[in-house]
Amino acid sequence: MPSLLSGTIDLKFAPQDSGRLTRQITDRLRAAILSGALPQGYRLPSSRVLAEDFKVARNTVSSAIDQLAVEGYVVVVHGRRPVVAAVEKTQLIAGDVLGHPGSGAMRISHWARQVSRSDRHFTNDGRSRPFAPGLADAREFPHEIWARCLRRAARSRYLSGHAGVNHPALRTALLRHLVEHRGVKADARRLIITSSAQAAIELISRVILNAGDLAWIESPGYGGARTVLEATGARVKGIPLDGSGLRLAGRTDRPRLIFCTPSHQYPTGRLMPIARRQELLAFATEIGTAIIEDDYDSEFHFDGRPVVALQGLDTAGHVFYVGTFSKSMLPDIRVGYAIVPDGLVETFEKVQRHTSQVVTGATQGALAEFIADGDYATHIRRMTRIYRSRRDRLTHALASVVGERLAITPPAGGMQLLARLEPGSDDCRLAADLAMVGMMARPLSRHFTGRITEQGLFLGFAAWDDSEIDAGVDLLGTVIAAKLRDR
Amino acid sequence: MPSLLSGTIDLKFAPQDSGRLTRQITDRLRAAILSGALPQGYRLPSSRVLAEDFKVARNTVSSAIDQLAVEGYVVVVHGRRPVVAAVEKTQLIAGDVLGHPGSGAMRISHWARQVSRSDRHFTNDGRSRPFAPGLADAREFPHEIWARCLRRAARSRYLSGHAGVNHPALRTALLRHLVEHRGVKADARRLIITSSAQAAIELISRVILNAGDLAWIESPGYGGARTVLEATGARVKGIPLDGSGLRLAGRTDRPRLIFCTPSHQYPTGRLMPIARRQELLAFATEIGTAIIEDDYDSEFHFDGRPVVALQGLDTAGHVFYVGTFSKSMLPDIRVGYAIVPDGLVETFEKVQRHTSQVVTGATQGALAEFIADGDYATHIRRMTRIYRSRRDRLTHALASVVGERLAITPPAGGMQLLARLEPGSDDCRLAADLAMVGMMARPLSRHFTGRITEQGLFLGFAAWDDSEIDAGVDLLGTVIAAKLRDR
Repeated sequence: MPSLLSGTIDLKFAPQDSGRLTRQITDRLRAAILSGALPQGYRLPSSRVLAEDFKVARNTVSSAIDQLAVEGYVVVVHGRRPVVAAVEKTQLIAGDVLGHPGSGAMRISHWARQVSRSDRHFTNDGRSRPFAPGLADAREFPHEIWARCLRRAARSRYLSGHAGVNHPALRTALLRHLVEHRGVKADARRLIITSSAQAAIELISRVILNAGDLAWIESPGYGGARTVLEATGARVKGIPLDGSGLRLAGRTDRPRLIFCTPSHQYPTGRLMPIARRQELLAFATEIGTAIIEDDYDSEFHFDGRPVVALQGLDTAGHVFYVGTFSKSMLPDIRVGYAIVPDGLVETFEKVQRHTSQVVTGATQGALAEFIADGDYATHIRRMTRIYRSRRDRLTHALASVVGERLAITPPAGGMQLLARLEPGSDDCRLAADLAMVGMMARPLSRHFTGRITEQGLFLGFAAWDDSEIDAGVDLLGTVIAAKLRDR
Repeated sequence: MPSLLSGTIDLKFAPQDSGRLTRQITDRLRAAILSGALPQGYRLPSSRVLAEDFKVARNTVSSAIDQLAVEGYVVVVHGRRPVVAAVEKTQLIAGDVLGHPGSGAMRISHWARQVSRSDRHFTNDGRSRPFAPGLADAREFPHEIWARCLRRAARSRYLSGHAGVNHPALRTALLRHLVEHRGVKADARRLIITSSAQAAIELISRVILNAGDLAWIESPGYGGARTVLEATGARVKGIPLDGSGLRLAGRTDRPRLIFCTPSHQYPTGRLMPIARRQELLAFATEIGTAIIEDDYDSEFHFDGRPVVALQGLDTAGHVFYVGTFSKSMLPDIRVGYAIVPDGLVETFEKVQRHTSQVVTGATQGALAEFIADGDYATHIRRMTRIYRSRRDRLTHALASVVGERLAITPPAGGMQLLARLEPGSDDCRLAADLAMVGMMARPLSRHFTGRITEQGLFLGFAAWDDSEIDAGVDLLGTVIAAKLRDR
């Protein structure tokens, strides 16, 4: 019978430590049992015989047998040779790397199906094809400074003790920045730190919405938020815009949650003026509605200065202010944040732990230092200059190459612009043609929830330098010209 | 009227850059409008008068007025002085840091209420009170090496390009480790990287379960998983254990999901032998049930070697293998992972993006290097020696101090042990008494779902050195003695 063992399993053991030898022998015997080569009831040779056969010390074999007994592969009765237990034949548990046949009869949830069906483009999908909106230029990021902050934070972790899910130093530094630059009103403990604005929007939606609840979103509006709202099982209604943004007049429905981008409407770039802001807040306060204010790219303001956040006007505690570092720093930084109402801080910290929406301490510490040392403000000032010049470059290039086909209002800030197409155009078709030549332009029509009233392309200008912008616009011009010829 | 402006608002401007001056003037005028000091219809003084009054250049005032017009606070008709628009009076938007009154009439969701109600202790709550289970000793962690890995990864990000949500280098290094040490069977793309095991369990539960579905959990079992399963709206049933773990015999209900810890049952430390593993896999395959195998602390094995993962035996693709670095490295590292069935990789990557369960690139890169360079294996070997000696220390100290009150079976691995109390004890009461003196012992009874059949304390030994263990046990002895006296 030793020949059977020798025949089916590889006995070449490297003469290494005995632990490794034990492991190899255990693996081989286990494989022989699982494959059926050693059937149920088969009595193994004595440890002396096995040791000779395997050319190892006897106690190495004994350890392997003990392990197999613990795992239930063999039964050992004191003084007798071990017997193979009742084990069904199965594939070898080899160290090889193989795929499983698939998930068979398992069924996935409604939620997973809903999320899977979503075909929206993720702004952070990592590709930097021009003119993907919302992408920062990683080449201009001060990687060295950031790497040093990270290293220092990682080294000091053990000295700084345990800081909970939202680190006080980051809360303090970030809040100071937001108070100064965005006019928010809060104390630092109301800041929760998540892995992105998307994560913050998801947590807030789940904390507020039950399945069947009504939620409003701007139309056109941010597709990422729509997917999140829909995935909660809420009924999501797209609310058309007028010149002041979300149009409230004449609405009689009562949403539980409103998602909006008052400082820089996504994707139209509109600013919601003070009168509409007050109207919105009064409406929310009256019917107990939560408002998510997504302040996604207000760091970069080119003309005048950014408008104070809606959150700073809210006295009733209905506004959740959401922001992100993925645009002001790097997509890959993976930190977003929300200011939540005072009474919900504890709920959110529980929910953060529950879903593990907690950012690693090294990143929180590094970010606190990066902000407190002024590196964050310096980077934003520098990128504001660069992005302003790129906005101008893209605006002028588009005007000179495809000016008669695209209508552009240069945005007062941010990282992208909206180029409207004439009525009757097919922006999805055009975007698909552009994708064929390696360009990414997001069709405006895809941002509508409900009736589509406009066609256009949403184009990022932040991540590309002047020559890349020029080359991109030339390519865009070629594709549009080819489309016209095809008609 | 300039006197009104002067009277209500602070006019002391630091003579800094004109942008800052503009901002200060805008802030002051906005505040005056919101407070009602400048009522609707009030016509502002000319920019020349305001400039004199504010002692700034005229174009600084003009920029401030332009900004207020954009925000809707004033109406400017060409050639005439600006008029205050219809704006409701509200609190000043000051830069001060104040809390909101609360969340008023807003209502939170069933899910949020469910999660908020959970009073379970989180293993990663950051406190290192002895004998909190599941805590690694951060003092023994090679912070310097890790900090260098982080720095290198952060610096190379821009060179390495974009790697998607789950970085290939980390997937490859981690899978190799898991194949060698845990006997899993998969290809690298089936590894998804999350912020913790908890996050992975939450994603899997949401992908599999609809509200109302039946889910099984071991009883006693891991409370974190129970909270997650319950929060999906599933009916969660606790399945009693026998000597082989989860007892399947005689069950006629058909769960959609089974949560289990076959290699080191949480909290009893039991090993599920091969026959029960095969029975469990056959059961799951037959009725299309998903299994979450939480392999939470199998890195540390003291006696013999760790048992091969259940996942390695699964040929039908029903097992989700879950692990974490928060025990093998640091709680604060915030990285967990799951191996998902082949057919669900795309679904999980979408769900990861949707919930932003994506770990920052620097951490993924650093971890890939830490594992590939052998530092991870070295750390685990070193900590295994340390933790084995601490297990022995705690076992002996407990036996000598409170041996007649607590029954202990030293665990074969891991970071904690279960000390059983005699029937009729009140482990929650004892744990509360211990908490009063700064000690954390988790009561066994709290781990049951359904009928409570045992009392005991679940005690971690990993994060404390010998003298801390001795001092902790002395304190434990004092509390227990005082309890006896009180009777």
